[in-house]
Amino acid sequence: MLPVRPLPAYLVQRYHGWKATTFAENRAWYKRLAEEGQRPRAMVITCCDSRVHATSIFGADQGEFFIHRNIANLVPPYAPDGDHHGTSAAVEYAVTALKVAHVIVMGHSRCGGVQGCHDMCSGNAPELEKATSFVGRWMDILRPGYERVAGREGVEDALTELEHEAVRVSLENLMSFPFVAQAVEAGDLTLHGAWHEIGSGELHVLDAETGCFVPV
Amino acid sequence: MLPVRPLPAYLVQRYHGWKATTFAENRAWYKRLAEEGQRPRAMVITCCDSRVHATSIFGADQGEFFIHRNIANLVPPYAPDGDHHGTSAAVEYAVTALKVAHVIVMGHSRCGGVQGCHDMCSGNAPELEKATSFVGRWMDILRPGYERVAGREGVEDALTELEHEAVRVSLENLMSFPFVAQAVEAGDLTLHGAWHEIGSGELHVLDAETGCFVPV
Amino acid sequence: MLPVRPLPAYLVQRYHGWKATTFAENRAWYKRLAEEGQRPRAMVITCCDSRVHATSIFGADQGEFFIHRNIANLVPPYAPDGDHHGTSAAVEYAVTALKVAHVIVMGHSRCGGVQGCHDMCSGNAPELEKATSFVGRWMDILRPGYERVAGREGVEDALTELEHEAVRVSLENLMSFPFVAQAVEAGDLTLHGAWHEIGSGELHVLDAETGCFVPV
Amino acid sequence: MLPVRPLPAYLVQRYHGWKATTFAENRAWYKRLAEEGQRPRAMVITCCDSRVHATSIFGADQGEFFIHRNIANLVPPYAPDGDHHGTSAAVEYAVTALKVAHVIVMGHSRCGGVQGCHDMCSGNAPELEKATSFVGRWMDILRPGYERVAGREGVEDALTELEHEAVRVSLENLMSFPFVAQAVEAGDLTLHGAWHEIGSGELHVLDAETGCFVPV
Repeated sequence: MLPVRPLPAYLVQRYHGWKATTFAENRAWYKRLAEEGQRPRAMVITCCDSRVHATSIFGADQGEFFIHRNIANLVPPYAPDGDHHGTSAAVEYAVTALKVAHVIVMGHSRCGGVQGCHDMCSGNAPELEKATSFVGRWMDILRPGYERVAGREGVEDALTELEHEAVRVSLENLMSFPFVAQAVEAGDLTLHGAWHEIGSGELHVLDAETGCFVPV
Repeated sequence: MLPVRPLPAYLVQRYHGWKATTFAENRAWYKRLAEEGQRPRAMVITCCDSRVHATSIFGADQGEFFIHRNIANLVPPYAPDGDHHGTSAAVEYAVTALKVAHVIVMGHSRCGGVQGCHDMCSGNAPELEKATSFVGRWMDILRPGYERVAGREGVEDALTELEHEAVRVSLENLMSFPFVAQAVEAGDLTLHGAWHEIGSGELHVLDAETGCFVPV
Repeated sequence: MLPVRPLPAYLVQRYHGWKATTFAENRAWYKRLAEEGQRPRAMVITCCDSRVHATSIFGADQGEFFIHRNIANLVPPYAPDGDHHGTSAAVEYAVTALKVAHVIVMGHSRCGGVQGCHDMCSGNAPELEKATSFVGRWMDILRPGYERVAGREGVEDALTELEHEAVRVSLENLMSFPFVAQAVEAGDLTLHGAWHEIGSGELHVLDAETGCFVPV
Repeated sequence: MLPVRPLPAYLVQRYHGWKATTFAENRAWYKRLAEEGQRPRAMVITCCDSRVHATSIFGADQGEFFIHRNIANLVPPYAPDGDHHGTSAAVEYAVTALKVAHVIVMGHSRCGGVQGCHDMCSGNAPELEKATSFVGRWMDILRPGYERVAGREGVEDALTELEHEAVRVSLENLMSFPFVAQAVEAGDLTLHGAWHEIGSGELHVLDAETGCFVPV
């Protein structure tokens, strides 16, 4: 027997509120979405962090974004080795089955995963270096980004730079997936990098020319 | 040089709208969230599907839910093998670092991933059986659920049953993580299973006594 | 010996029901709230009136709102004279210790305190004018609001206008507290005015541009 | 012009949910409550603390409880000196105008106000001793309770004892109001003391015989 509990009452109450308002006002659309399937325009890859709501920031409603959220919005390199790869599966499904037109990787400030990566790579978090640390092994994906920041001169804010690298590394890894590269080359898909500052509400986007993040 | 493009203009426009309204009304809270860090009450594991917005359904705002989204809201079994495990990393971070009080696994109707799993397991999707299929290998997690549904008599709607199994399998796998089992036993964490029907807007929750999903 | 009595049985029974359901589903969260302390996002100042439940109206659960309730949701002017000031203490604690992001003053229709103020100021309630009347002396805080309504032309519903003034006067008085004004100016706090109509369930909010209450 | 902002969007959304469900299901009752006025059975005096919801714990709905909430659920001594006394006004209104049948004073564990009082009285919080500290001057009400705890032998948990004293002092002060004492003597009013432990969910009530708090 699974040790599950009923849903907390406050969530049940809020759900009923949603059902009676948002759902009721949009039931025809939700019915179509159910019957005809989703047709999202974009995939968004963003962090699990509770402070980051891509749908709120982009005013998106049901049906618009196919959203994958993981720690530090990372995409691992292409590795078709037969293992479970949740992020790669999400990318494959979005690009080959749903044929989304955009993939947006959005990082954010004060990212706990990026902080952990920084601590680990700089030798200050031995517990994350253990083989059994899921967070540590996941953040290994960002090690190439850490090396780049470490080798850069005049870095003022290493954590922000590393958050930016998390977006760049993910975009580079995305391009290592043959079906992504092909779709980009065929003009069927565009990639976008963004970074959100939680406290100030600012949104910065990755500029292809300069390779830098600039405010929109 | 990364082949990135500027953010689509309609998203930039919506972002500016968010900044001038929602952000402006809540800037003090977002500033505190940035400075003091997040303290989410619950982790929600749900599907990437664009039709499923847990935050909308539960009226949750920035800071309330730590959200992991992957294909078919699956949690793989505990496997500390040193590989990249995005879902396991998210669970580890939520339970051990953030110490969330609830983990809610929420499945949904018309799930493309579950449909794929059903096709694959019933021999109708050979392309998903390839070692190189990320979606196929990810949906392998649900094979035990498929076997249970296949062995059950009088199944009227095999896909819905399999969507329910996706929640049960994930909850079972969650309990295979030592830190999850310990937190549950210590009364520091409660687990919850839910399933959302997109077209009708209904929400069903997993009942511990009967093992069935019942409308709230 | 204090002349106390056991709690009425119907309340004991309801409490046991709460313990077995709502508490059981949320024990991990309540335990964390106990151990780590509260971190409410907002302070709500509302009336003691039994018909006004801010937590119900706003779907808020334990931990979300720091709530002060007094007669007619009034905030007195800043007066650091060494006397007991319960409302000022609550505001001071919320803003300086808890650092809430919002203070919401919510008035309501058919407010007995506001009615008493109107009767008193218009000479129809001599008993409230006595120095020994706690309600009368408390409602003195709203006298400037009464004067404004009395001096206005074309007032159709003086009581509703005075209920609105109770919110405005409280917000004005809030701004007379140096720590409130500083937090507002620093962007660490936003103030909000609202008025709830009990019978129709409507919610009106104070608009900064026009100074009027408008339905949400 | 008041520096007010629109209500945060998530609260507006939750409000609409409440309106469409809880309100819609009870509109006839709320209409009667609006037209005929409130007739609450009890007054509850409890803390502003966001973790204490008397209505949730006691399953109370609109119209049942007249609720005053201040820091540390304190009632000051009777002092008809013509100043603003918010708590005394609430008590006066409840007992003489609404004629409630019960006044319940409910304290709670981990009370920040009580902690502050303890720090102040033991010489560890000089900032609370300033004349300009509203929290300090408000917590002066509890000084007699601190003295009693300090003079008691074998005190294991001074803070919990002081939280209990906050209830006892308030009940004693309540009896100093002539209209309260008269109503109690006439059998028109009963007083009750309670203390709620946030983490364990326990509820203790003050026993008249022993003067101790015992679990219900």
